[in-house]
Amino acid sequence: MLIENLDKNTNKLRYFIVFSYNGASFFGFQKQPNQISVQETLEHALTILLRENIKIVGAGRTDTGVHAKKMYAHFDTQNNLAADLVPRLNSFLPPSIAVYNIFQVDQDFHARFSALHRTYEYYISTHKNPFTENSSWQFWRRKLEIDAMNEACEILFEYKDFTSFAKLHTDNKTNFCQIKKAIWVQQEEELLKFTISADRFLRNMVRAIVGTMVEIGTQKIKPENIRDIIEKKNRNAAGISAPAHGLYLVEVGYDFDI
Amino acid sequence: MLIENLDKNTNKLRYFIVFSYNGASFFGFQKQPNQISVQETLEHALTILLRENIKIVGAGRTDTGVHAKKMYAHFDTQNNLAADLVPRLNSFLPPSIAVYNIFQVDQDFHARFSALHRTYEYYISTHKNPFTENSSWQFWRRKLEIDAMNEACEILFEYKDFTSFAKLHTDNKTNFCQIKKAIWVQQEEELLKFTISADRFLRNMVRAIVGTMVEIGTQKIKPENIRDIIEKKNRNAAGISAPAHGLYLVEVGYDFDI
Repeated sequence: MLIENLDKNTNKLRYFIVFSYNGASFFGFQKQPNQISVQETLEHALTILLRENIKIVGAGRTDTGVHAKKMYAHFDTQNNLAADLVPRLNSFLPPSIAVYNIFQVDQDFHARFSALHRTYEYYISTHKNPFTENSSWQFWRRKLEIDAMNEACEILFEYKDFTSFAKLHTDNKTNFCQIKKAIWVQQEEELLKFTISADRFLRNMVRAIVGTMVEIGTQKIKPENIRDIIEKKNRNAAGISAPAHGLYLVEVGYDFDI
Repeated sequence: MLIENLDKNTNKLRYFIVFSYNGASFFGFQKQPNQISVQETLEHALTILLRENIKIVGAGRTDTGVHAKKMYAHFDTQNNLAADLVPRLNSFLPPSIAVYNIFQVDQDFHARFSALHRTYEYYISTHKNPFTENSSWQFWRRKLEIDAMNEACEILFEYKDFTSFAKLHTDNKTNFCQIKKAIWVQQEEELLKFTISADRFLRNMVRAIVGTMVEIGTQKIKPENIRDIIEKKNRNAAGISAPAHGLYLVEVGYDFDI
């Protein structure tokens, strides 16, 4: 998809960049002082290769240790991009970030504000597996009742205010989210996958939901208790936060076909 | 499978143990001074849990960094093993080793000498992938011609002496191996898998074969040149040694059904 649009005021062109990263190598997506972030690493690579000071705006933020299989960002540039920019970026960037695609968009398109929905996956290894230690939650000492966890998923659709699964002291105006999908499936014999889609997610929300669902899976709490937890609008009512290294941002939806 | 056999001389029972390990955490399988090995880690765990000095004999050795999806070893014990030994071992052992099964065998069964064949897999990521950095060879800067690599595989079956792919200065009596299977397949869109089976493998053999085949895949050498390489019986004739972290021992065959 190529949309011709040279902004008359700034003389800049807007591009989307599609990439993945292994969260283990970064202190989250967002740039911050004295820590290596995905944003800073990408901005540095683009600035060097384009010989122009580049700032990127991500589709969202992921916390330290959280992965992204498919993440989007936009940036503006005065230069026309060379056809070989993607392979050159991949050679320049560390092994922990892979760039898939870069394409031009309308100047009013925004990686964060134009996003209509986001999808996350969470992986749990239900048997001890030396090869998934850093890519899934190793939860094999107790059995998980997947049916009970899926019962709790159904209840999520009835609510909009997910304050109970939000990190305390954030500056969100509202804690309203519209959950469109939430399901646990046995991906492989020893691997459980949770998929959740919503228009937006609160900080730490997926990990708090997964932590709570695992307590339902081990029968510590009943599926229907998730109602009380949500209605209390209090993070302390919910379960623990699941480890970051099992969580993947897997898709961001826009109203064009990427 | 349970075979009753109490050795009259030693009063000991022989057990097979089936396990996997992530090679990144170990300096190879074999015990050695001042380095952490799989063998020493397993022997330590068994010695503590069985309260008896346990020595294990592995089906073979894997070099530093090489993984095993399914490895076998045997050990002798004077004790009857508790039914919950496998979960107790998994709790005691580090995340980098998983035990699947422990079962009694005839006293004359030997993890190494009773093995009839071994199978290895080697994985190559043909696109940059932040999630397979430590589990496959990242080879995405140049294209690999899989057909040429499989042509070379066919030639392997014609030979028995694989000195050209053996680490120099080993104390093997012969360098003869009977290769039973050797094939490259596109496992996933971005993942190439090499499977090789033989009655035995020389030290470093699979990695030397893979390194040579990759030079065939990039058209640096022709598939039929593998004949000259083998016939020279000289390691220097072959290609580079592929990185250890793409290599997995995946099966050891015995004449009973495990």
